[in-house]
Amino acid sequence: MTKQTTLAEIGEFGLIERITKQSTKTHKTTEYGIGDDCAVLKYTDTQYTLISTDLLVEGIHFDLVYTPIKHLGYKAVICNISDIYAMNGTPQQITVSIAVSAKFSVEAIEQLYEGIHTACKAYNIDLIGGDTTSSITGLTISITAIGIVAESDISYRKTARVNDLICVTGNLGAAYMGLQILQREKSIFKEVGAQPKLEGYEYVLQRQLKPESPKHIIEQLKKNGIVPTAMIDISDGLSSELFHICKQSHVGCNIYEEKIPIHENTADVCKEFSIEPLIPALHGGDDYELLFTIPITCFDSISTIQGVTVIGNITEADKGLYLILKAGDKVALKAQGWTSFTQ
Amino acid sequence: MTKQTTLAEIGEFGLIERITKQSTKTHKTTEYGIGDDCAVLKYTDTQYTLISTDLLVEGIHFDLVYTPIKHLGYKAVICNISDIYAMNGTPQQITVSIAVSAKFSVEAIEQLYEGIHTACKAYNIDLIGGDTTSSITGLTISITAIGIVAESDISYRKTARVNDLICVTGNLGAAYMGLQILQREKSIFKEVGAQPKLEGYEYVLQRQLKPESPKHIIEQLKKNGIVPTAMIDISDGLSSELFHICKQSHVGCNIYEEKIPIHENTADVCKEFSIEPLIPALHGGDDYELLFTIPITCFDSISTIQGVTVIGNITEADKGLYLILKAGDKVALKAQGWTSFTQ
Repeated sequence: MTKQTTLAEIGEFGLIERITKQSTKTHKTTEYGIGDDCAVLKYTDTQYTLISTDLLVEGIHFDLVYTPIKHLGYKAVICNISDIYAMNGTPQQITVSIAVSAKFSVEAIEQLYEGIHTACKAYNIDLIGGDTTSSITGLTISITAIGIVAESDISYRKTARVNDLICVTGNLGAAYMGLQILQREKSIFKEVGAQPKLEGYEYVLQRQLKPESPKHIIEQLKKNGIVPTAMIDISDGLSSELFHICKQSHVGCNIYEEKIPIHENTADVCKEFSIEPLIPALHGGDDYELLFTIPITCFDSISTIQGVTVIGNITEADKGLYLILKAGDKVALKAQGWTSFTQ
Repeated sequence: MTKQTTLAEIGEFGLIERITKQSTKTHKTTEYGIGDDCAVLKYTDTQYTLISTDLLVEGIHFDLVYTPIKHLGYKAVICNISDIYAMNGTPQQITVSIAVSAKFSVEAIEQLYEGIHTACKAYNIDLIGGDTTSSITGLTISITAIGIVAESDISYRKTARVNDLICVTGNLGAAYMGLQILQREKSIFKEVGAQPKLEGYEYVLQRQLKPESPKHIIEQLKKNGIVPTAMIDISDGLSSELFHICKQSHVGCNIYEEKIPIHENTADVCKEFSIEPLIPALHGGDDYELLFTIPITCFDSISTIQGVTVIGNITEADKGLYLILKAGDKVALKAQGWTSFTQ
């Protein structure tokens, strides 16, 4: 019998490497395939079409015990269009496919789509198609997002350059701490039947349950004439995304603890859980903020954009990836990303 | 408490109607959204981009007890690109997302992708992206296919005209009878442990397990200068697809029993199961042949294309949808499509 390898042995990235090694590029419309936030297609001389797709599975990516199904629909759209923004593009369309078991009522599915339509309206997206089918257990949502970007504006992961500034939008770690609250209250409810106490945690809960995409930052960058040299969305944690950019750009980086933006409510919740706020900021997931690099000459211009923080700079590859602590110590970054897997 | 409606009460088409009624079309790149085999996007003056997506769920759409996982990968690609051909387009790219439980080995997933890559090679498709994630139970496959079609060549469902000829490619009902064989042998194996007897059924089994798309017919139509006035792929059975075309085109139809192409092996298996061959031909699914209409002036030209059969003609809407039996009787067609649901 041939050797049987478990998926856990090689992990997601190991699997992707194995199953995509045969991929070919035969069409001139295929500009760029696997390896970035989106695939890039080329139908005209001046513009690219961007395609990104995600699969969300009940029990793996979401828990309907504490996730309002309408918010789930909203978040599913955000997760996907986030990848279009991460290429400096504008999302325009989505397709939505669902597999749904008999436990769901028509009204529940309508609520899910209510959330999807609300996100489409907020981000100006056309829902153009999809598929609906049964499932044996639970709900699966598959969304494909389609967008456009001018050829001169596209930001890949692979093009960060030495001395570039490293920037993030918004703040980090909030969604992860929101998840901690939800999981704690679920456990308490299961053990003692106490009603969840969610008051005072609205900010981190909202970041987990109904995240937004920093669309306005992409628009502001355009207005200021800044094209990021590299960009990625922060879905698996800052540290993991920095590794993607540095590996694909063949560079290193220094980031500074004191610069990493953490919301005060996130810090409060961290204190309650006795978690160092840096940990969810570096390794928490689901923030859907953007991580990007810009030429150092753009420093003055980027400083005028509210909601963007410069957290470090790109270095030569052989310098490695480092976090400079407030005390001045230099520690090697770890790629330990949060994997969206709840089990 | 608000009323809770079960999904079974309103069915797939009822659900689609409810969840898509809020859909809007705000982008000029969105040429046509929900309601055909593909969504249609417009990036240039002369060409459309076609997008289609499907979700395949273990236990609903496939049974790995009798489906070789490599064939499943192949078939998943065919199901999707079939929708691109159904708009008279050329598929160029796919994205593939999978959710997979711990019961699958890396080698099994590699086999799945072996089938996907084989189909991509056979049909000249670039695999440009996707997603890989865990699932609680079983395997889910979501594929999005992307293709192109010249603006002057596109075939919608909604544009069949009175007096057009109705054509089908290949032959019908074979995939359904292949499924009957597989289900019978599975039952026998479960009951008495006897090894499946599959010899002599190769044709219908191949049609079920490893279908092909009639790409060559699309190419031949182009060579002959024939643009179908309407087209759809036959995934849910001829009768159901005729209803889609007639409803969306506001027409009726007559089709002739004696013209409906049924392979002799399919007829043999039908005999063994005491099933009238017309039944799987009309209501069987999974054939992935094409149903299309052409102007009557194209009759001579279409007659030169091997693998296409003229089975009837389009009539006024008020005439209804009819099947003319060999004996001359006229019976109303039923929309009873095969729904891909195995339970």
